[in-house]
Amino acid sequence: MPPAQHIEKHFLSSALVRDIVIGMADGLTVPFALAAGLSGAVSSTAIIVTAGLAEIAAGAIAMGLGGYLAARTDLEHYESELQREIDEIAQVPETERTEVRHILREHGLAPHLAETLTAAITSDHQRWVDFMMRFELGLEKPEAGREFNSAMTISCAYIAGGLLPLAPYVLLDSVSGALPVSAALTMAALLVFGGVKGHFTGVAPLRSALQTTIVGTLAAAAAFAIARLVSS
Amino acid sequence: MPPAQHIEKHFLSSALVRDIVIGMADGLTVPFALAAGLSGAVSSTAIIVTAGLAEIAAGAIAMGLGGYLAARTDLEHYESELQREIDEIAQVPETERTEVRHILREHGLAPHLAETLTAAITSDHQRWVDFMMRFELGLEKPEAGREFNSAMTISCAYIAGGLLPLAPYVLLDSVSGALPVSAALTMAALLVFGGVKGHFTGVAPLRSALQTTIVGTLAAAAAFAIARLVSS
Repeated sequence: MPPAQHIEKHFLSSALVRDIVIGMADGLTVPFALAAGLSGAVSSTAIIVTAGLAEIAAGAIAMGLGGYLAARTDLEHYESELQREIDEIAQVPETERTEVRHILREHGLAPHLAETLTAAITSDHQRWVDFMMRFELGLEKPEAGREFNSAMTISCAYIAGGLLPLAPYVLLDSVSGALPVSAALTMAALLVFGGVKGHFTGVAPLRSALQTTIVGTLAAAAAFAIARLVSS
Repeated sequence: MPPAQHIEKHFLSSALVRDIVIGMADGLTVPFALAAGLSGAVSSTAIIVTAGLAEIAAGAIAMGLGGYLAARTDLEHYESELQREIDEIAQVPETERTEVRHILREHGLAPHLAETLTAAITSDHQRWVDFMMRFELGLEKPEAGREFNSAMTISCAYIAGGLLPLAPYVLLDSVSGALPVSAALTMAALLVFGGVKGHFTGVAPLRSALQTTIVGTLAAAAAFAIARLVSS
């Protein structure tokens, strides 16, 4: 197996999957919980639909733009650390050279090997900076231009997740009729979503499905209890 | 400057700060936007407070438990990849040895140096596994037992962020009177929060403050527009 293909397999749970998981986990949970919570307090499906759609809009934008800014911040953080390493290598080369030696020794290299390798790495500034970024700081250059896609993916996943639990409140007339349908639909979706998520994150699918469903159910139960308490 | 202290400085934006940022960014944005959105559709502060508190409960639990599970998943992902590397080194040592050589060559090491270093690294299985985990996969062992603290921090930050925009709806009688106070309070909080966040993430504080405030405002405007549209 060539290294590239091998690395690929390890990183299957990549940026796209991560973004879908981020958006859909909250999208399936919070609008459902809000609708369930309001079901304990108001008797008008119109108010629940209005609140639900307002929440979905707010959540999708907040999470999408949040993802956009997080991706930008990663890139800027990388660039500011890169500049700092470049400056430090120019200003305190001996300190930085000691750090290279220290990192190599930490990896169990014998002193004379560490010395030879330190000399090889620090003989080229570009290589030296690369080494410090990856081995001292553990930073990899973030993929440029990922921000927009990331934001759209998170938002769409949030909207898709959020509309499902709201649908019964749109289609049925009574809150008491819509709540159990919404709960059943959402639990089924959480089970499937949790299972698929587990497949990508390397957690056993059944366990992941149960975990995800329990989170959604607890959130909804708390929202229901609080809404009923406040409105009574 | 000794290496340890130096690394410390780079990683100031650590787990705690990250968790507070995650919780508060959404806590300040979504409940505010939901309340603002409902202000465009209903005239009862009681309904807005009920919906807001239900949302805060749901969001705090969903995000807190989400953080708990994410921290667990990180740990499990690390352990499953660790086991995979241990197995691969036992089963296909030549492939793994080629990968070590390949990584070192990618770092610009001359062939004979890469060869010497590969032999040194692969002479000890523990060291070999460590090298693959850190340099091939870029994974560092997650801090154990962080899950509970992470969950509590995210939840509390979400609640703190969410109660602020809701307070005017609790204290004032009319929706039209509470909305501008809530908007002003939230914008002030977003500016401060964005500025502090920028300080920790290495983004210019003023820019971070404006970005964060714009996200909150856009989310609230969209929620407001949708709620008005639906209820009209």
